[in-house]
Amino acid sequence: MNCRKFLDITADYPVIFFDSYGVLRNHRGLIPGAVETIASLRAAGKHIRVLTNNAARNPKAAADRLAYHGLPGIPASEIITSGATTRHFLEQKVKSGKVAYLGTPASADYIIGAGLEAVPVAEVDFNHLDDIRAVAFLDDEGYDMNTDVNLVINLLRRCRVPVVVANTDLLYPVAANEVALATGSIARLAEYVLGRKFVKFGKPTSQMFQMGLDSVALEFSAVSPGDILMVGDTLHTDILGGNTFGVATALVLSGNTRADTAEIEIEASGIIPDYICSSIGS
Amino acid sequence: MNCRKFLDITADYPVIFFDSYGVLRNHRGLIPGAVETIASLRAAGKHIRVLTNNAARNPKAAADRLAYHGLPGIPASEIITSGATTRHFLEQKVKSGKVAYLGTPASADYIIGAGLEAVPVAEVDFNHLDDIRAVAFLDDEGYDMNTDVNLVINLLRRCRVPVVVANTDLLYPVAANEVALATGSIARLAEYVLGRKFVKFGKPTSQMFQMGLDSVALEFSAVSPGDILMVGDTLHTDILGGNTFGVATALVLSGNTRADTAEIEIEASGIIPDYICSSIGS
Amino acid sequence: MNCRKFLDITADYPVIFFDSYGVLRNHRGLIPGAVETIASLRAAGKHIRVLTNNAARNPKAAADRLAYHGLPGIPASEIITSGATTRHFLEQKVKSGKVAYLGTPASADYIIGAGLEAVPVAEVDFNHLDDIRAVAFLDDEGYDMNTDVNLVINLLRRCRVPVVVANTDLLYPVAANEVALATGSIARLAEYVLGRKFVKFGKPTSQMFQMGLDSVALEFSAVSPGDILMVGDTLHTDILGGNTFGVATALVLSGNTRADTAEIEIEASGIIPDYICSSIGS
Amino acid sequence: MNCRKFLDITADYPVIFFDSYGVLRNHRGLIPGAVETIASLRAAGKHIRVLTNNAARNPKAAADRLAYHGLPGIPASEIITSGATTRHFLEQKVKSGKVAYLGTPASADYIIGAGLEAVPVAEVDFNHLDDIRAVAFLDDEGYDMNTDVNLVINLLRRCRVPVVVANTDLLYPVAANEVALATGSIARLAEYVLGRKFVKFGKPTSQMFQMGLDSVALEFSAVSPGDILMVGDTLHTDILGGNTFGVATALVLSGNTRADTAEIEIEASGIIPDYICSSIGS
Repeated sequence: MNCRKFLDITADYPVIFFDSYGVLRNHRGLIPGAVETIASLRAAGKHIRVLTNNAARNPKAAADRLAYHGLPGIPASEIITSGATTRHFLEQKVKSGKVAYLGTPASADYIIGAGLEAVPVAEVDFNHLDDIRAVAFLDDEGYDMNTDVNLVINLLRRCRVPVVVANTDLLYPVAANEVALATGSIARLAEYVLGRKFVKFGKPTSQMFQMGLDSVALEFSAVSPGDILMVGDTLHTDILGGNTFGVATALVLSGNTRADTAEIEIEASGIIPDYICSSIGS
Repeated sequence: MNCRKFLDITADYPVIFFDSYGVLRNHRGLIPGAVETIASLRAAGKHIRVLTNNAARNPKAAADRLAYHGLPGIPASEIITSGATTRHFLEQKVKSGKVAYLGTPASADYIIGAGLEAVPVAEVDFNHLDDIRAVAFLDDEGYDMNTDVNLVINLLRRCRVPVVVANTDLLYPVAANEVALATGSIARLAEYVLGRKFVKFGKPTSQMFQMGLDSVALEFSAVSPGDILMVGDTLHTDILGGNTFGVATALVLSGNTRADTAEIEIEASGIIPDYICSSIGS
Repeated sequence: MNCRKFLDITADYPVIFFDSYGVLRNHRGLIPGAVETIASLRAAGKHIRVLTNNAARNPKAAADRLAYHGLPGIPASEIITSGATTRHFLEQKVKSGKVAYLGTPASADYIIGAGLEAVPVAEVDFNHLDDIRAVAFLDDEGYDMNTDVNLVINLLRRCRVPVVVANTDLLYPVAANEVALATGSIARLAEYVLGRKFVKFGKPTSQMFQMGLDSVALEFSAVSPGDILMVGDTLHTDILGGNTFGVATALVLSGNTRADTAEIEIEASGIIPDYICSSIGS
Repeated sequence: MNCRKFLDITADYPVIFFDSYGVLRNHRGLIPGAVETIASLRAAGKHIRVLTNNAARNPKAAADRLAYHGLPGIPASEIITSGATTRHFLEQKVKSGKVAYLGTPASADYIIGAGLEAVPVAEVDFNHLDDIRAVAFLDDEGYDMNTDVNLVINLLRRCRVPVVVANTDLLYPVAANEVALATGSIARLAEYVLGRKFVKFGKPTSQMFQMGLDSVALEFSAVSPGDILMVGDTLHTDILGGNTFGVATALVLSGNTRADTAEIEIEASGIIPDYICSSIGS
């Protein structure tokens, strides 16, 4: 495997998209050298965006969290969350009424922000389902899996409404060698037992990349996919999504994909990054 | 749809296999006419077995439950549970050691009955995983989904041991129009996020049918699949399994498959029963 | 099912996207009333685009074909093919070299148009695979399935290159009650046996919708998804894709989805159009 | 990886089941030492059966082929083909009429042997489909993929009859580094585009193992799964099937599974053989 120095590969790209967890920070904290790398990119006039599969918090809270972990230089306006693409969909397609959701109270901001009423699945009145206009899988926390997954399945058996999934990630790391089920897993389970297809957001779907591109276009109007380098740690989201959208892709080995199995995973999946780097700090 | 009188279609078959829930009883209680039908079959000298996708209780408890619901005439020796096929597998393939499981304490009897030590997933010592020799998905109750599904996924990321699923059912009915996730759903979720294949028991796999056939052979030595009629309410388990094993199949409309959608479900799935009846009592 | 008059539902939308086959024409020829409907929309100042999952011919040939079938008023500049989104990807991601393809010679124009060399899979030199930079599934015609599907599978077992699928349709209608395998089926088969993920174009992926939006923006700069009505005959491509991209969707019953099963298919799939019409002419 | 000497691991098992291709012979010819190994097992009084996913030829032809390749000592009576389990199903479930098939004329013997009339899919009269009682996917040769795969899909869209697949293998090796699509792939494609489930035979399904057990029981009446060692080169068929049926399993590295990737494939799939050997001759 031919690892490249990260800053070298950024030379040809005026726009850099970063995944957050596994790229800017991981379970050990901030990636060593991340602050210096971001500073170098700023100095070189690069446009930076963070594309994160996360609907648990809004861009402001995500920026605060990066600052808390030692990376203060990413403002909320540069952070694209999968929650934001979900909110955009709800605005366009569900004009009024209630949206039943699985997630934390904070994640419900994406429903409220779309001008709709957010109702936790546990509080849905099964005798009055007519005002439920959509169902949203937002986050893996904020509800009781013992009862609420059954509730959402029974709700969906009775309601013919759009279902949105704010994040298709299956697992997320919680410690060095420990993972937890992410929202995408619970949504996938519901799809499977119901035989239905939900509307999905988050990488690898193109909406995140389009929203990132649109955001950059406000300050760099001639931007096209060929100007962008997507930097991620996960083949099936960051790299597949970037490849499909037509941007260049760099895999870093500081998160989900380990150095000792990266080649095999690339070979097995057929998802091929344009570049491979140890981390954004090396 | 051409519904047949149930007793008429049994005429050609000396052996009748019944599914339990949805066939002998459902959420309203015993199927009307079930007692008389079983009595008629006994009087005609038929060999009867109940094949149930259930590892939550042993055959004795299953027989007691049928008696409690008003059908006393089915002894434990005529009941084949998917738990029993799972126990048989554990006996053959995992000779000694501990088996970590998701399920009720009663379901663990199938592990203990195989001469092995049963450990709930929540009590597994992650610092001493070497003595875990298998993992079993037994029942959908008896554990906390919020924590224990993550535990079993992390356990399986570290342990290269056989994984058995005692029941591949995805959902089970809990009221007239209400379902709950069954063990098969949780196992399917774990398979999906891990990219692995578990060893599965319960209909539609052939082991249940073979165990039923072997059991009948003790009293009717010349029995062959052509002698058997499988009666079930679910296309993907009872009817698919029976068709694959080569026995005749009768779909009853007193459980999972509703009269108004049966034709469409058969058409869509390609799983074709030999006969269709309203219920075993009509 | 509440069918609406087609022109009525267009009132709120300044932009109308049409699928082609099954919407503008079908196996019986032009949809009755199509010419008048398009004329009315033009008179009302609507922006029209045709989004077609087709890489067999270029937009000019697609326009000629519509004219031949009696609908002369759609210029090539208003036709977005999945071949065009594929060409865009090849331009962005595969800068030079050879692309091996399955498809007709005409479909190869999308490779050549990206500045690359197109090589039919049957003519690939297996002793010199280094200059193959991508593999493309373009069309279901133009090759011998007996030999060339095996060739592409063996090619992909040896080459670690991007693979693009110009059209994810599984089947297409060839007569009243007769279908044929489309490119998407052959690509899906290859993905399945190889355990790999290809990069896919055509509805329901968002690129087609984005390319349509970008094209309209050249003449109507303030356009947003909320201005657009997608009209299609297929739930899994036109309606799912439109719903995901955030545009309004209208299902017509003149193609893949039949009036007598539309309700059940919508219920079963969970893919819910905003409107249902018999056809664009009624 | 701890490879064992093959004859050593057979000591505890009075019955040995072998896969054929990849185990007894491969693309280079007979496995070195195969003749001596079979002779040693015979001398030790072992019961031997060959379980092969093959419906292209009958057991007699399969025995002749092994003899031609230098292994004359396996009589037809010791060979269980997936064609034989398919014939058994057709006998039990389809008592009379025509069976449309994809396969060679020789593969049709399994239909004719069940007392039914075999009709190649290309010769089916679409104006008289009522006498078609089943459809069978038998072999990957004997038909034109360009036309006959479409024919079988259109046939199945109109006929509500059982569909059997004689062999679920996806690929088979034709040279050192070259594969071809097997019947299972074509059947899987048809299932996928039609949304249906077919009845499948061949390893890993249990019927092959049961037919092998039944055959051994004629000469060794007390045989149970615990007496049997299944020897195979493919994790998803030989080893998964053996593990599920409850027999011991040995993976050999002379066929589909290569020595340098065996550990990773076992880890990734979760399909764990009891033993690993280089080949049956070492």
